[in-house]
Amino acid sequence: MSQKIEDGILFTDLYQLTMAQLYYRMGLHETPAQFDHFFRNYPDYGSHQAGFCVAAGLEWLVDWMDEARFTQADADYLATLTGNAGNRLFADDFLDWMKANGDFSSLSMRAIPEGRVVHPNVPLTEIEGPLAMAQILETALLNKLNYATLIATRAARISQAARGNTVLEFGMRRGHDSGVNAGGRAAIIGGAAFSSNTGLSAKMGIPAKGTHAHSMVQAFIALGYSELDAFQAYADIYPDNCLLLVDTINTLESGVPNAIKIFEKLKKQGHRPVGVRLDSGDLAHLTVETAKLLNSAGFADASIVLSNGLDEMSILQIISQIREEAVQAGMDANTIIGRMVYGVGTQLITSNGDAALGGVFKLVSLEKNGVWEPAIKISESSQKTPNPGRKTPWRIYDKRGLATADLIALEGERPQSAEKLHLHHPSIHGVSRSIQADEVSKIEPLHAQILEEGQKTYEFPPLEQIQAQRTADLERLDIGVKRIIHPHIYHVSLSKKLWDLKQELIQKHKVKK
Amino acid sequence: MSQKIEDGILFTDLYQLTMAQLYYRMGLHETPAQFDHFFRNYPDYGSHQAGFCVAAGLEWLVDWMDEARFTQADADYLATLTGNAGNRLFADDFLDWMKANGDFSSLSMRAIPEGRVVHPNVPLTEIEGPLAMAQILETALLNKLNYATLIATRAARISQAARGNTVLEFGMRRGHDSGVNAGGRAAIIGGAAFSSNTGLSAKMGIPAKGTHAHSMVQAFIALGYSELDAFQAYADIYPDNCLLLVDTINTLESGVPNAIKIFEKLKKQGHRPVGVRLDSGDLAHLTVETAKLLNSAGFADASIVLSNGLDEMSILQIISQIREEAVQAGMDANTIIGRMVYGVGTQLITSNGDAALGGVFKLVSLEKNGVWEPAIKISESSQKTPNPGRKTPWRIYDKRGLATADLIALEGERPQSAEKLHLHHPSIHGVSRSIQADEVSKIEPLHAQILEEGQKTYEFPPLEQIQAQRTADLERLDIGVKRIIHPHIYHVSLSKKLWDLKQELIQKHKVKK
Repeated sequence: MSQKIEDGILFTDLYQLTMAQLYYRMGLHETPAQFDHFFRNYPDYGSHQAGFCVAAGLEWLVDWMDEARFTQADADYLATLTGNAGNRLFADDFLDWMKANGDFSSLSMRAIPEGRVVHPNVPLTEIEGPLAMAQILETALLNKLNYATLIATRAARISQAARGNTVLEFGMRRGHDSGVNAGGRAAIIGGAAFSSNTGLSAKMGIPAKGTHAHSMVQAFIALGYSELDAFQAYADIYPDNCLLLVDTINTLESGVPNAIKIFEKLKKQGHRPVGVRLDSGDLAHLTVETAKLLNSAGFADASIVLSNGLDEMSILQIISQIREEAVQAGMDANTIIGRMVYGVGTQLITSNGDAALGGVFKLVSLEKNGVWEPAIKISESSQKTPNPGRKTPWRIYDKRGLATADLIALEGERPQSAEKLHLHHPSIHGVSRSIQADEVSKIEPLHAQILEEGQKTYEFPPLEQIQAQRTADLERLDIGVKRIIHPHIYHVSLSKKLWDLKQELIQKHKVKK
Repeated sequence: MSQKIEDGILFTDLYQLTMAQLYYRMGLHETPAQFDHFFRNYPDYGSHQAGFCVAAGLEWLVDWMDEARFTQADADYLATLTGNAGNRLFADDFLDWMKANGDFSSLSMRAIPEGRVVHPNVPLTEIEGPLAMAQILETALLNKLNYATLIATRAARISQAARGNTVLEFGMRRGHDSGVNAGGRAAIIGGAAFSSNTGLSAKMGIPAKGTHAHSMVQAFIALGYSELDAFQAYADIYPDNCLLLVDTINTLESGVPNAIKIFEKLKKQGHRPVGVRLDSGDLAHLTVETAKLLNSAGFADASIVLSNGLDEMSILQIISQIREEAVQAGMDANTIIGRMVYGVGTQLITSNGDAALGGVFKLVSLEKNGVWEPAIKISESSQKTPNPGRKTPWRIYDKRGLATADLIALEGERPQSAEKLHLHHPSIHGVSRSIQADEVSKIEPLHAQILEEGQKTYEFPPLEQIQAQRTADLERLDIGVKRIIHPHIYHVSLSKKLWDLKQELIQKHKVKK
């Protein structure tokens, strides 16, 4: 139970602790505070911005919060820190308070569960509790939710591009150190079916996937054997899991013909060969030619697994090229596309192109004499001004059952009983839209209560259920919003009450200033 | 001592284990093998490709190798995996062998130490040992060395752009989950002076850095106080560490004037104010105006800390704009630039723009009947063909003491005793360069022996020494190679013997094929 110091409660920016000590010194450390976590922009990969995100990371964040508590070792380190004149930065009374109170058992949390489709400016997570501990949580909360949501989103996009065919997460070797574990889990939540990450798969209780690398074939050749010998050895040991990497020598002249020889033997022995993996060259062209060879040999159901720097754009391109080349080859493109599997590494696990989600954690209000006072950062544009108060985000579904907007309302508002829904643009005056109750098929609150003063009030669902939730949310998302390139903008709106409150506060602060 | 399953030896791609079992089954698992780790391309941020890298990650990799060993829990998980017909993927005899032998105590390692400037195709790490365990190591080795080297490199570039001024690593909240610990350490190796990551700083034994966020000022305002009150409270508690964030309301009209009021009080009390931090707006313009205000108030030595999405390009731009604006304001640009400090977050910790280093781990040779047989992947272009055999990389310094080329030679070659050095282009026939011995000031071997059959034969230096090594290497690098935009290409060459051996092998394999 001895957590490493870098994984415990000191997994935070130092300024959270200097601020906590200041609050302690001022007697404000236990002042009830509310912070909202949200992101302002979808990930943007240059030519192609995402049109939606998939929430992830919550369960592991709460696991971390459960374990993190301020220890003697933490106090000992902070006691060594000094200001520029050599005097201590942290005093003993504050460190003693932290030893007694330095955990997250005082915090309440409401959040949108993992696997849900989410959009900008909607509060994904709301933290309420004593100012000092809520502030200290900021760094870990953002670290864990930003990255996981980024990767779940990328996985969903890649899976969309792959038309729902199997996507395998293969990114460990290029990911960011141990972050690949959280990233691999997020990929599974977002759209990957399996991961090659063995330890992570063990932790998640799902099968890890993988077969062999070029090095295996090279080792055989170096020892005086052939590619066929290597394939034969593999088939002998894994007769019911025989997926062969065919590009070590030459895909069409050596790899695929050798694989077919092996498959024929396996078939005679009563085994079903799984397929081949292509890892270099013109993958679209090689897929069509490989399918042709496999079909002629009677292996029309063998999978064709692609890998090598794939992402949603290259998959789109490969599928579009296959549609052209299949026709020229007199083959059915859909049948080829239907048997493809995608092993995606670097681009998925790092979200390369836009490797960070800019989620923020903003102080929304503080309790003063029993009244919640809003906190606003005045310098920011009205577009960046956070929405004040305790809020409930709702999702509104149209008659077709598709999500048409998210509505951020104040706590206690009952949009489902309104005759007409008023949806105000989040930052532009006078821009709003209204929906008659009879155009709406369902109005659904998005938050779940996760923690109530540190106690879990939510049962984290198993991964399959999270995946099912994601699939359901994606099915109810307009096809234009899911488009990989230039998606439609999904509407996130404010209720009239929230809009009015926000304007009132902005006015009040303008006068103050 | 119970390592979590996802952090132990199963922190590897499944295919390493399926291959290991195949080698075990064939009796090849203990065949001596050599793998080289190297990268082929510098990180490329679109408009600006790196001209050098800085090696990092080695000590933490070796720490991980020390702890990682195959456990009963690992065996239990692998025993649950099945092929498509439902039969087990891993047999008991292999899992028993892994329980007895599944650690890295059989491996030897030679590597270029952390903090050294490194270049493409040079073997950064060489692993020698039994084929099965060397293969299983691949994933973790690449995961830990690729990411750390990527981030150390980015930190070095950012520090170059910052003209050696202090760079602070502030990226935890946007980095990739717990990977930020390895990334923060790499940033310190590459050029950052300190990190805000408290636990990591504790582990590294260096002071964490940070002061306060906007939320502190907002909390004061929400409770009916002012920005000045917030600054005063901060100064009371941290009189010798008083760095104030001045953009919560308005930088020039409120933040800086309020900070100056506080600084004047501190000065009277005998404290030296540290400075101000600017986190929004036109940072170059605001820096010049802030310097003007601070100077008039007698705080010409107060630091100006910048943050907000910085990277090497934005720092270049800010400095260039300050040069223009300072002149217009009748101020000395160099004095302003000299007092600046840069807090760099997202772009550093994620290496956004190119979030992965494509380092690879290639089987180079295998021992057969006491003879090392080279392993070559025949399908690849000659440019991608790995260099065969056991090699020593050397660095050649010219008369000015600047590094002029890295020379990859076969083990046993003695370039320092040659009268004329023959440097062959790594992949193009007939392109070579020669250097007379009297044009050379030093020839230095780059590898250190790190592990000898699992035993550490190298003392990992403290971080300051690694930083000093990095500084020394950067000082001996041509200024054109260090340029942020379109750097000169540094020469990495092969010795004639290595070139000839490589060609011989390519020819031999072509005939075989």
